[in-house]
Amino acid sequence: MSEVRRDIITDTWVIVETDHQDVPRDHLKSLRKPPACPFCAGNEAMTPPEVCAVRPEGGPNGPGWQVRVIPDRRPVLRIEGRLERVGVGIHDMVTGVGANEVVVEAPEHLTDFSRLEDGQVELVLRTWRDRLVDLYRDQRFRYVLVFKDHGTLAGGSTIEHVHSQIIALPATPRRVKDQLEGARNYYDYKERCIFCDILQDELRVGDRVLLETERFAVFAPYASRLPFELRVMPRRHCFSFAESADDEFRDLAGVLKRTLGALYRALDDPPYNLVLHTAPNLLPHEGYWATVRNDYHWFIEVVPRVRRTDGFEWGSGFFINPVAPERAVALLNEVL
Amino acid sequence: MSEVRRDIITDTWVIVETDHQDVPRDHLKSLRKPPACPFCAGNEAMTPPEVCAVRPEGGPNGPGWQVRVIPDRRPVLRIEGRLERVGVGIHDMVTGVGANEVVVEAPEHLTDFSRLEDGQVELVLRTWRDRLVDLYRDQRFRYVLVFKDHGTLAGGSTIEHVHSQIIALPATPRRVKDQLEGARNYYDYKERCIFCDILQDELRVGDRVLLETERFAVFAPYASRLPFELRVMPRRHCFSFAESADDEFRDLAGVLKRTLGALYRALDDPPYNLVLHTAPNLLPHEGYWATVRNDYHWFIEVVPRVRRTDGFEWGSGFFINPVAPERAVALLNEVL
Repeated sequence: MSEVRRDIITDTWVIVETDHQDVPRDHLKSLRKPPACPFCAGNEAMTPPEVCAVRPEGGPNGPGWQVRVIPDRRPVLRIEGRLERVGVGIHDMVTGVGANEVVVEAPEHLTDFSRLEDGQVELVLRTWRDRLVDLYRDQRFRYVLVFKDHGTLAGGSTIEHVHSQIIALPATPRRVKDQLEGARNYYDYKERCIFCDILQDELRVGDRVLLETERFAVFAPYASRLPFELRVMPRRHCFSFAESADDEFRDLAGVLKRTLGALYRALDDPPYNLVLHTAPNLLPHEGYWATVRNDYHWFIEVVPRVRRTDGFEWGSGFFINPVAPERAVALLNEVL
Repeated sequence: MSEVRRDIITDTWVIVETDHQDVPRDHLKSLRKPPACPFCAGNEAMTPPEVCAVRPEGGPNGPGWQVRVIPDRRPVLRIEGRLERVGVGIHDMVTGVGANEVVVEAPEHLTDFSRLEDGQVELVLRTWRDRLVDLYRDQRFRYVLVFKDHGTLAGGSTIEHVHSQIIALPATPRRVKDQLEGARNYYDYKERCIFCDILQDELRVGDRVLLETERFAVFAPYASRLPFELRVMPRRHCFSFAESADDEFRDLAGVLKRTLGALYRALDDPPYNLVLHTAPNLLPHEGYWATVRNDYHWFIEVVPRVRRTDGFEWGSGFFINPVAPERAVALLNEVL
């Protein structure tokens, strides 16, 4: 089991595993690939039974699928149980309910997302949306994070087969709250979405824009924390990825592939994290985020991990970025 | 030169190097140690001229010193220039003024801080304080961060000779602001310091306390973000490390050595970050932090990096900690 504990000073939440017995020693061991890939079609028996799948043929937990969603083999949060908020001395705790899923993004053993067919990427995007919609029906879940860790330097697993992860959380993460608050303050002042304004400014200035389609734009943020950090943003104001339409996914699939392909070529297959930023679960009784439809704007963040972060960044949340975003985009444009 | 850029959504600051030409590719290269150690006594000519030194004998930039402070060979911020706040389109920027210093913690080639003599650690602590006091005289600097990266997995340099770093910043880091705001809100409500209350609660409960002396206590925070995260805290309420007295350093030196020694033995010389959390520079005209003397409390954070962080943590600021702090302390107590 696990507990979700809150740092009462900074309002930061941590999932603490209370019955886990291993002590991580990543600094001592080298990582080894598993002998057989549990995510390949035909090896369904090596994973827990699937949550759902895009499957033109065959029955559950056999081959015939295109995208497959399975529970994490070692979930950090459990789907069963009541959401309870508990005081522990001076501290705050929430019971460890949530969900922990893996989206296997192709039946074949591919390791590079940018090499998937456009139609396959579209299926993955639809799966993300459908899981988000489904998990948000459960009002115990305050936030659902969809992300992808590519390469072990980005915290990725030793299973190289293309996959992403979904975690449903019983509390809203601090970084999401910071974004929501910043966006709300701006909206209160300007009556405009801060993300729409930033996007417009980027398109006007141009030197941080990597690419632009009818529906999406990709740019390196002005205050990029890490080198080659990129944001993929819908040009239409929309607060939640769950509200995306299928024809938007067609455009987005191509945009994502070109973006990740450019990083692959410019930086020699860098480790990276991809994170979907979308609105939290809007609970009927939750007045706090009532304005979120107007002031929040979903986007996908892609962060190559070509530089180790250090104690300065850890301790302060203040980053040092040796590659200015304008320069990063110029370098990526050379390979695009 | 560099620019200090602000993410206007989340109020996060980033130092962006605008004339740096290298592109980091840490994922491709293996790190190599320099052939000769520039920090050893006798090699003073290999570093920039010193800022100051604890030196019982000899003249500047020769041997005879016990602790030596030098400017960083490749500073990310420059000491010269005016602090200017500039609007850049929709964005905010501050000129890249600041300081970037290295504290060489021993004249001999030692690589493990916990093996320094007690008296030597005291000299290092005094040096940190003296630099903090000196740099805070410069009102352009809003925050001074003292930290130590041990091991390349913690972002440490390939120079293994014991050293720490000091960065003076022209803006208050987000994580510091979060702490200050959390502490102020608590003080407004309770009229007590939140850090004093947490420390008392930890000492009462006991199972997260690693050690306790007349003046200091070391404990694993209730919501530890990473395994074996520890806080070294003065038992006396004090908002700033700059206000510490010499006799406190005697106690603290032993406490730090025992803490880092326990980590060394329990985790086989883990990479770690050590970060000094202290109050920001209290400017005479700055009413904002006027209560900081009452509600803030300095401490030293020690964070072993025995686990890679991933996209989940990067994207959300929500951490997963597989080793409960109670268990971490029990394991460390076995070797203490």
